[in-house]
Amino acid sequence: MNMVSIIEKKKLGHALSREEIAFFVSGAADGSIPDYQLAALLMAIRLNGMTREETTHLTLAMTSSGDVCDLSAINGIPVDKHSTGGVGDTTTLVLAPLVAACGVPVAKMSGRGLGHTGGTLDKLESIPGLSVSLSEEAFLSQVRRIGLAVIGQTKNLAPADKTLYALRDVTSTVDSLPLIASSIVSKKLASGAQGIVLDVKTGAGALMHTLQDSIELAQAMVRIGCDAGRRMVALVTDMGEPLGSHVGNALEVKEAIDVLSGRVTGPLLEVSLELGARMLMLGGAAKTVSEAKEKLREALSSGRGLETLRQMIAAQGGDPSCCDDTARLPQAKVILPVPAPGEGFVHHMDTIGLGNTAQAMGAGRRTKEDVIDPSVGFVLHKRIGDAVAKGDALATVYARDEQSAIDAIAAIQRQVVITGSRVPPCKLIHAFVTDEAVERL
Amino acid sequence: MNMVSIIEKKKLGHALSREEIAFFVSGAADGSIPDYQLAALLMAIRLNGMTREETTHLTLAMTSSGDVCDLSAINGIPVDKHSTGGVGDTTTLVLAPLVAACGVPVAKMSGRGLGHTGGTLDKLESIPGLSVSLSEEAFLSQVRRIGLAVIGQTKNLAPADKTLYALRDVTSTVDSLPLIASSIVSKKLASGAQGIVLDVKTGAGALMHTLQDSIELAQAMVRIGCDAGRRMVALVTDMGEPLGSHVGNALEVKEAIDVLSGRVTGPLLEVSLELGARMLMLGGAAKTVSEAKEKLREALSSGRGLETLRQMIAAQGGDPSCCDDTARLPQAKVILPVPAPGEGFVHHMDTIGLGNTAQAMGAGRRTKEDVIDPSVGFVLHKRIGDAVAKGDALATVYARDEQSAIDAIAAIQRQVVITGSRVPPCKLIHAFVTDEAVERL
Repeated sequence: MNMVSIIEKKKLGHALSREEIAFFVSGAADGSIPDYQLAALLMAIRLNGMTREETTHLTLAMTSSGDVCDLSAINGIPVDKHSTGGVGDTTTLVLAPLVAACGVPVAKMSGRGLGHTGGTLDKLESIPGLSVSLSEEAFLSQVRRIGLAVIGQTKNLAPADKTLYALRDVTSTVDSLPLIASSIVSKKLASGAQGIVLDVKTGAGALMHTLQDSIELAQAMVRIGCDAGRRMVALVTDMGEPLGSHVGNALEVKEAIDVLSGRVTGPLLEVSLELGARMLMLGGAAKTVSEAKEKLREALSSGRGLETLRQMIAAQGGDPSCCDDTARLPQAKVILPVPAPGEGFVHHMDTIGLGNTAQAMGAGRRTKEDVIDPSVGFVLHKRIGDAVAKGDALATVYARDEQSAIDAIAAIQRQVVITGSRVPPCKLIHAFVTDEAVERL
Repeated sequence: MNMVSIIEKKKLGHALSREEIAFFVSGAADGSIPDYQLAALLMAIRLNGMTREETTHLTLAMTSSGDVCDLSAINGIPVDKHSTGGVGDTTTLVLAPLVAACGVPVAKMSGRGLGHTGGTLDKLESIPGLSVSLSEEAFLSQVRRIGLAVIGQTKNLAPADKTLYALRDVTSTVDSLPLIASSIVSKKLASGAQGIVLDVKTGAGALMHTLQDSIELAQAMVRIGCDAGRRMVALVTDMGEPLGSHVGNALEVKEAIDVLSGRVTGPLLEVSLELGARMLMLGGAAKTVSEAKEKLREALSSGRGLETLRQMIAAQGGDPSCCDDTARLPQAKVILPVPAPGEGFVHHMDTIGLGNTAQAMGAGRRTKEDVIDPSVGFVLHKRIGDAVAKGDALATVYARDEQSAIDAIAAIQRQVVITGSRVPPCKLIHAFVTDEAVERL
């Protein structure tokens, strides 16, 4: 096989065979194909696309380019959830304990990655003492014992994706549907879950800005998962504004605990229940969405969800008492309100801007070497459509020092846009996508 | 300026600005832009194209990425000719002495390059003693004295093109009209001639297989040259079969001498006169094609053309007596006829295959390190449309040993295709292309 003829074929718009795809993926993983040839192929894929079959072959080849987790020692159907990423997106910390409390095992192995704000691993690490570095044996045994574990990747998952992702970033080939879908799904397949619910975000703060693009991405990923023999569905949910009101690592853990304690309801809970319901169904614990939601609500109101989180925190070396007293989580030094600069209604938010504000405060990494400050971030008090009087607290910032607080206040005042015209609140759930159909919700 | 945003812009199908093009070309020349980014950009250019303005900016940026020859010390308008490459294409050795003999200076600086068979430099080097490595001073002084010099590149011409060309070869981005046109024209502009006649070959043995593609390439190049302020026109000529009957370095020199001596006429002379006439016109020595051809024929019949070649050979250290006795050129050890395997008519030729046969015999390089054997090659005795009886000599092979001769005979028997149906001879000249118009001939 010859890399130039593979590039040539894709350049001419033809579909690559399984063998051709396997050839370049293994060459990306072992470094035997030079970057410039991979870069030319990625651009040809970006411009000429890939068929469903090609995308599935690409994904499976990337999955098998590295280790694949074996979760067969876990009783039941282990399920997982993956979000394409958003701001104030704390659903994992809410739904994973609820789903596990309903008897469906959640064995989650997360990558760390870069992002506006920390990922799930960073949020968990804001709990004093908690470790996300478990051996594979400890991980499986914890899931068997309490139904839930969330840890960092211990294995070499999808190394071909690492090479290709790094190249895409510097060759303007990130925005390719088959490349995005295969990158995400290859790692999910490698992490071993049998049932996977994808949360594809849509809107200004998401990877895909339009609903149509988000649905197409969801379809592409679900098809690959199903072709690979996994149970996979997707919800397309809104990221026109942050999902939860809390943005920042310890702040998001606090919000999750508040939700699991029954003290707080709203969009974060609503989306978590919707995603969690699909996880229960994939895990075989419910037949319908309403039955599943009923079970999840019962786990919430009975306190079994919070209890499962408490057990997981304890099992991973963290301080479980923060579930009873969130003041035990890291606290920021400077806490200041963000006064509304004018009156009217919240018209829209610069959601990516808000994520960048949190990052600038220390809640996220700009480079892999950056150290996260778990205590910092902000809490939004207004959502899109809310009425605002001049001087009202739009948000509260939790900063490491005064300058950082002042900078964040000014940024948030720009990023939460107030106008005279009232707009309706954001719809939270846009669509449910299976291999067979797209259901607009 | 940022390379990722330049790639992005071309990926989206937008035109790059002069500054953006200058940025990546200088980065290609000095190595500051990594190959993988150049490769992604080349594929985006291959798939999304370039406007006339972009192609001109690209060409001029590549030209000025290195040295530019100054031919202003030469009296008159120095002219040059460039062929996109073919088999048995010996026009330079015929027309350059004729044009120079008519008073228009020909100062030709050639690249060596890879090819089926040797380039003009390799052919000249088959003349005993001749050197193509002259200093710039010696080069200019020779042109001033005898009106003609053909040497290898002494300067660092268009180094950005070297980088991009090497990348295109391994990323399947050779077949891009703006990239082909800019690559060829940038080097021609750098070599300093004011009047340039392009010989764009068309047909099975050419870079462009269809007449339409060949005309488009000719137009693209002529436009750049005119935009750059040079006098540039193109002829589209046939490469459905080798142009001359002789293929191989010393054999092609012999054929050129035979033509200049008036012993041989035919397609090689016809195309050389057509190209040479345009050179005379660009050089200001004739107003019409017929006037120019008349002058060239007079230079031929009077022997002034051969005399100019003889002077050039002597000036460059070669043995001029080979102009009187071509047996002084290197002679092959094994000379054998290629008998026709059947009867009928020559229907078509695998012209690229014939080029590869010559290369395999030792007449061309497969890698830069290969050493050419000047004596080997073959002479075709039949052209497309000719009647053939079984056992007729289709060709004569000139080989270094018997095995090589036997292999070449078998190859040529496959590559010259004989069928029962008579086809007309190939049209030699298809079109004349200027900045204003395409004239079908």
